[in-house]
Amino acid sequence: MDLIENARLQAEVLVQALPYIQRWRQKTIVIKYGGAAMVDDALALQVMQDIVLMHFVGLRPILVHGGGPEISEAMKRLGKQPTFVQGMRVTDQETMEIVEMVLTGKTNKRLVSAIHQQGGRAVGLSGKDGNLLQAQKLESEHDLGFVGEVKQVNPEIIHSMLEGGYIPVISTVGVGSAGESFNLNADHAAAAIAVALQAAKLILMTDVPGVLSDPDQPSSLLSEMNRQQAQTMLDSGRAAGGMVPKLQACLTALEGDVERAHILDGRLPHALLIEIFTDAGIGTMLK
Amino acid sequence: MDLIENARLQAEVLVQALPYIQRWRQKTIVIKYGGAAMVDDALALQVMQDIVLMHFVGLRPILVHGGGPEISEAMKRLGKQPTFVQGMRVTDQETMEIVEMVLTGKTNKRLVSAIHQQGGRAVGLSGKDGNLLQAQKLESEHDLGFVGEVKQVNPEIIHSMLEGGYIPVISTVGVGSAGESFNLNADHAAAAIAVALQAAKLILMTDVPGVLSDPDQPSSLLSEMNRQQAQTMLDSGRAAGGMVPKLQACLTALEGDVERAHILDGRLPHALLIEIFTDAGIGTMLK
Amino acid sequence: MDLIENARLQAEVLVQALPYIQRWRQKTIVIKYGGAAMVDDALALQVMQDIVLMHFVGLRPILVHGGGPEISEAMKRLGKQPTFVQGMRVTDQETMEIVEMVLTGKTNKRLVSAIHQQGGRAVGLSGKDGNLLQAQKLESEHDLGFVGEVKQVNPEIIHSMLEGGYIPVISTVGVGSAGESFNLNADHAAAAIAVALQAAKLILMTDVPGVLSDPDQPSSLLSEMNRQQAQTMLDSGRAAGGMVPKLQACLTALEGDVERAHILDGRLPHALLIEIFTDAGIGTMLK
Amino acid sequence: MDLIENARLQAEVLVQALPYIQRWRQKTIVIKYGGAAMVDDALALQVMQDIVLMHFVGLRPILVHGGGPEISEAMKRLGKQPTFVQGMRVTDQETMEIVEMVLTGKTNKRLVSAIHQQGGRAVGLSGKDGNLLQAQKLESEHDLGFVGEVKQVNPEIIHSMLEGGYIPVISTVGVGSAGESFNLNADHAAAAIAVALQAAKLILMTDVPGVLSDPDQPSSLLSEMNRQQAQTMLDSGRAAGGMVPKLQACLTALEGDVERAHILDGRLPHALLIEIFTDAGIGTMLK
Amino acid sequence: MDLIENARLQAEVLVQALPYIQRWRQKTIVIKYGGAAMVDDALALQVMQDIVLMHFVGLRPILVHGGGPEISEAMKRLGKQPTFVQGMRVTDQETMEIVEMVLTGKTNKRLVSAIHQQGGRAVGLSGKDGNLLQAQKLESEHDLGFVGEVKQVNPEIIHSMLEGGYIPVISTVGVGSAGESFNLNADHAAAAIAVALQAAKLILMTDVPGVLSDPDQPSSLLSEMNRQQAQTMLDSGRAAGGMVPKLQACLTALEGDVERAHILDGRLPHALLIEIFTDAGIGTMLK
Amino acid sequence: MDLIENARLQAEVLVQALPYIQRWRQKTIVIKYGGAAMVDDALALQVMQDIVLMHFVGLRPILVHGGGPEISEAMKRLGKQPTFVQGMRVTDQETMEIVEMVLTGKTNKRLVSAIHQQGGRAVGLSGKDGNLLQAQKLESEHDLGFVGEVKQVNPEIIHSMLEGGYIPVISTVGVGSAGESFNLNADHAAAAIAVALQAAKLILMTDVPGVLSDPDQPSSLLSEMNRQQAQTMLDSGRAAGGMVPKLQACLTALEGDVERAHILDGRLPHALLIEIFTDAGIGTMLK
Repeated sequence: MDLIENARLQAEVLVQALPYIQRWRQKTIVIKYGGAAMVDDALALQVMQDIVLMHFVGLRPILVHGGGPEISEAMKRLGKQPTFVQGMRVTDQETMEIVEMVLTGKTNKRLVSAIHQQGGRAVGLSGKDGNLLQAQKLESEHDLGFVGEVKQVNPEIIHSMLEGGYIPVISTVGVGSAGESFNLNADHAAAAIAVALQAAKLILMTDVPGVLSDPDQPSSLLSEMNRQQAQTMLDSGRAAGGMVPKLQACLTALEGDVERAHILDGRLPHALLIEIFTDAGIGTMLK
Repeated sequence: MDLIENARLQAEVLVQALPYIQRWRQKTIVIKYGGAAMVDDALALQVMQDIVLMHFVGLRPILVHGGGPEISEAMKRLGKQPTFVQGMRVTDQETMEIVEMVLTGKTNKRLVSAIHQQGGRAVGLSGKDGNLLQAQKLESEHDLGFVGEVKQVNPEIIHSMLEGGYIPVISTVGVGSAGESFNLNADHAAAAIAVALQAAKLILMTDVPGVLSDPDQPSSLLSEMNRQQAQTMLDSGRAAGGMVPKLQACLTALEGDVERAHILDGRLPHALLIEIFTDAGIGTMLK
Repeated sequence: MDLIENARLQAEVLVQALPYIQRWRQKTIVIKYGGAAMVDDALALQVMQDIVLMHFVGLRPILVHGGGPEISEAMKRLGKQPTFVQGMRVTDQETMEIVEMVLTGKTNKRLVSAIHQQGGRAVGLSGKDGNLLQAQKLESEHDLGFVGEVKQVNPEIIHSMLEGGYIPVISTVGVGSAGESFNLNADHAAAAIAVALQAAKLILMTDVPGVLSDPDQPSSLLSEMNRQQAQTMLDSGRAAGGMVPKLQACLTALEGDVERAHILDGRLPHALLIEIFTDAGIGTMLK
Repeated sequence: MDLIENARLQAEVLVQALPYIQRWRQKTIVIKYGGAAMVDDALALQVMQDIVLMHFVGLRPILVHGGGPEISEAMKRLGKQPTFVQGMRVTDQETMEIVEMVLTGKTNKRLVSAIHQQGGRAVGLSGKDGNLLQAQKLESEHDLGFVGEVKQVNPEIIHSMLEGGYIPVISTVGVGSAGESFNLNADHAAAAIAVALQAAKLILMTDVPGVLSDPDQPSSLLSEMNRQQAQTMLDSGRAAGGMVPKLQACLTALEGDVERAHILDGRLPHALLIEIFTDAGIGTMLK
Repeated sequence: MDLIENARLQAEVLVQALPYIQRWRQKTIVIKYGGAAMVDDALALQVMQDIVLMHFVGLRPILVHGGGPEISEAMKRLGKQPTFVQGMRVTDQETMEIVEMVLTGKTNKRLVSAIHQQGGRAVGLSGKDGNLLQAQKLESEHDLGFVGEVKQVNPEIIHSMLEGGYIPVISTVGVGSAGESFNLNADHAAAAIAVALQAAKLILMTDVPGVLSDPDQPSSLLSEMNRQQAQTMLDSGRAAGGMVPKLQACLTALEGDVERAHILDGRLPHALLIEIFTDAGIGTMLK
Repeated sequence: MDLIENARLQAEVLVQALPYIQRWRQKTIVIKYGGAAMVDDALALQVMQDIVLMHFVGLRPILVHGGGPEISEAMKRLGKQPTFVQGMRVTDQETMEIVEMVLTGKTNKRLVSAIHQQGGRAVGLSGKDGNLLQAQKLESEHDLGFVGEVKQVNPEIIHSMLEGGYIPVISTVGVGSAGESFNLNADHAAAAIAVALQAAKLILMTDVPGVLSDPDQPSSLLSEMNRQQAQTMLDSGRAAGGMVPKLQACLTALEGDVERAHILDGRLPHALLIEIFTDAGIGTMLK
């Protein structure tokens, strides 16, 4: 009888998700996946489950990923020393080749396989497939080599995938006008994709609790911000480190008519499901 | 933090449903709804939630209902005395009119409204709509009047409803060749519909735990039966009362290539979800 | 040879209908059905034939009906005394239940069956199906109980039916925000549906020859009126009794861009076909 | 009031057509048009009306025509003497050119225009359009020149026309493997088209009452024949003149699974409507 | 090995066509076909090949033709003397009949057959089919009889043909409001069709090198003109003879948002392919 | 004038391709790409042009590639020594990772970019995307590690790409039942894909002239072979080295109802176009 009692509780939880399922059905959710949730095997498994569940109950999740540690590790094996300028990886020709092979040939396909292991159907894309992410060299003080920025998103290939019932998994390698590869910031690329798809939500997964009004006080988490507050935080210099591109990406998305942008703590198990299907506010929501 | 912990548990329950959602997606499930689950307000609400959830996660539930107590009550108000022969209501012209008004004009629309209240979209049908249930007089020793049996199911109208994204709710009034009404046994009608739709499952909701090998011993529940065992139970007379038409309906469904038939205890909260989305075996499954 | 001569005359009549068929093909015609044409068996049969013919030659008829005498009769059988205030039935909870059962469970299904008997395909709907007629309590001096007015029409379910090749037959029971039932004036409900479907015509069937300039002179029939004339007649109080809601419904339809509204004498055999497929002007046409 | 009484009679006639409309909806009817019905202006107008009406009420009429008198007249104007061998026009190169110009450039387009004048939509095709009628030289004792027989029907172009809502009007000029033109017997071509479309009916319009058991006795009309009777009549030589190809064409159609073949007296006004929409048996029906 | 070397050169030519194929894919090209390219057998064959190739590589060519010499020849055979006033054929009833028979019954079907001989699929249409070219009498000083001008183009039939995968071949006979035929100028008709289809290009094939600034100097070919230059040339009277309707037709097309209009020398083999698929500028391009 | 003369010659070449375009339209052609045609930049460019042209003129090319030299080069850079047993690369875990990164992350995307540079639209897939190539460990005498064989092809993702108008480019990495990667022989993988798609042709590009009856005599090229001859050559041991898997792959394709299989000399410029669009026989054709 315990078994049935337990099943009844499960059923009640399912029913509590009903209003959320209704609200988000047919909506596109662009998720920038990275950080601990990608490195930690248990968390990674949970993200895949969350994505597959979202897909099955009628949402349209799009996974956008960088590669972080795997790239540095591959470079180390090849005897190359990663160099960073203002948080951006200096990317010479040889580094770009490694970045692309790791992101598109290893990380991306690992995620595709993991989704299939959870019963979903996924297709991996890089920015080169269907010319998805047209890019150009990022102009900056220091020459960063093949670091690029998105010039145009051609989302037709994503629509083809969604119609076919596949979850798109996108590695953030852009393609230049001569067919060359560019290393793109994954937060920015995710925002550009969210705008091109007129997504309902952009979710950036991070390794922090969200936006803090006092970076040293985890308890100072801002659970909600509007655009102006985000802009002020950027202008005032109070946002620092990895939070800068995240806030910028959120603003890009909101200005491009994405309804909501989230900075989410990917270290929490099932952070995605919690955000989408429950009342519990985790991370920071921008609108 | 409790809130988030709770949300995490909820997320885990959702994820546990994943393999079941996958397995039953796009499958048609015909549910004969009746008994306590229809009379008890709390249970009724839960059935509606279960149906709506099934619909949202991609299954195709079809609700088939009788009317039981509401009919007898209406007859009493009109000063008519219900008469039963071998468990079947003797149905003269006036009784038939009452049956039809209650089933189609009251019970059916109450269910349709309840589904909308839970966020779903439903359409109520009787066997007359689109000539769904063509019927003829049931031949029997005693003249039962307008008690009928299904002669042919025309499921086109159900397909139209499913394509439109509606949950069909069907009252078991059949239509004769001259347009007259027939009172149909809801278990049999549900089985005929399940066969016509080539459903994956027929679920009969009852007020007993399932099929018992010893009717006096609830602990003698048979959690699984095959066709031959069901036939033997019918032939030997060990099945009695309301269990007879239920076992017959299950056999009709299985012989018509419905994959599974279930006799389910509708008195358990969320019995439908438990049956479809968990491992807990409740009631009797025939295959 | 007589037989062939007769057939030739028939053929000529068919050919004379050609320009009308052409003109009204693919057009939606909302017909409020009631009065003598509903009570008299011969007339009722002819209305069904007219509807089925309209459907077969490419028009899109929608039948909207009240229930009149059947409701009062049912109430009498239950020992309830109908009460009317200013022509509107005072509708307490118990009365509402009877109204709904009769309209939706008896009248509606009788019409559906009758259409099938003439070779057509029909589906009966109440305002609860697919949330078709969202209603709210009608505010008035006297508390009329569950008498409602249309707040919103959700015509998707009608489109699903038309695409499936079915003639929709609609009983005018509305649904409140809590799922409760409301008794709606059928003329008004038909007008609201005509507007929601952007119908080409609204036809209200009555038991009078049409709008009379002098109510006591049948010969004073106005075969055509414009909106202003109708408004003046309402404002001046010259329109009385059942003509008031009919003129109001016609105005609602015309203001909602329905091309034509008709008040038609349902006592004439085949009044619908005569109106649509011949030159003979019967009743009053408003534009 | 006379006007309305008359309208009522018209409505009744329309209603009597209901069961026929139902029965023939969506069915393809191939009509070989020729003889008096093509020469007499009043009859011709009626045929066009009949065709347009059939189209509007949901049938799929296909008009196949020869050109008879117009060809001989054009030849006379050009100083060519028509020569016939066993009822078949000897067709040299120059004659073929005239035949094609008259059939396809004059007769065909006159029919297309006449259908549009009646409110229908038509497209004229010759056997060359979309390679509709692939032909080869008819082998016979006497060299008949460019008299051909159908080798293959490619009905895709007809399906395109029907989907577009057009009535196909087909002139019976076939195309040889080198692109040359062939003069085809219109009865045979119509039969071949009926078979390729799996039509429900082939109707051959003639200037006789139908098949007579005694050619000299109009009263000896056979209103029905089966295949064997038709074959016997052909074998015995009792069928003569223009009746031979007509009976052969009917047999070809029936053997190719066309349901019914008719030899119809085109001199009767509205013969087509009478045949399709009334009980009056005119002409001979083969099945 | 020579064979392979040759094949390699062929392959290179194919590859050089790639950018042109890409640019014109899915684009509609209306081609007025006439003059030497229609009279000379070798040139005519090449035009058919060009059209079929354009169709196969994804363009949508529409062929519009007059009939020139064939009409005069047919008239001669019938003893009629062609009369021209200001370059326009005076068209009495009898002449109109001849014109229509030749254009629609001979020239048109010859072209349709020729396209099939090259492996394409074509359907011949006159302005009467689907009411494609509604026309009215051309008002002018001298009564020109049945010379007409386009009043309205109904391009639905062309869209049906294109969807079915057919190349439309159109003879320029228009239809009046009473179903009568009108002789249309083919340049003007082609322009009207190009506008109705919102074509990318109108190409007029002629027997001159293009527009010359000095009519006596072939070397004075203008390879490009804008609208104003064309208008000036018309106003100044420098354009003469057959060039007047051609320039007018080009202006009509450009004013109706056709992107480019060409006056092309049809005496050059494969002039169409050269214009569309190579860099070689032949004839005059107006934009 | 030279320019125009040249253009005319080009046009003639295009026209000569007509019958081949017709023959292969809508046909699926699976191309195993490798060897010199992949290493030599000029040849590689030509292959991309050939593929894009095939796509534009209506064929459905599918590119399947291995990675050869790029893999060995990457391994060398990582200090790994490639080991081969009977022509197959021994693939330990680390090697498999390198193979996958190079094939899917470098070679594949380079090809996708190159197709876009030629104006085409492509999407790169590995066997993991949409579970395209389900694989299992290849059983053999020596443990070859992660060398696999195709167990099942799931071609739905290819159909989605083709419908979207994309050229699929497939890297031959298979996915095991636990999501692990397998290194597949590209010839065999291409054959399995050709069978799953019921392709019209399988083309294997090699660095030899085709199948030679005497391996030492290039002049002994067999331009055609049937299945039995191929089987005999395999059984007799006369086929050696890389020719063995190629002949096996061809046999697999033919036995799976692929119409033709080709072993083609990829060192010839535009070998694909020559094979498809000209008469020149290059390489060996098996049927």
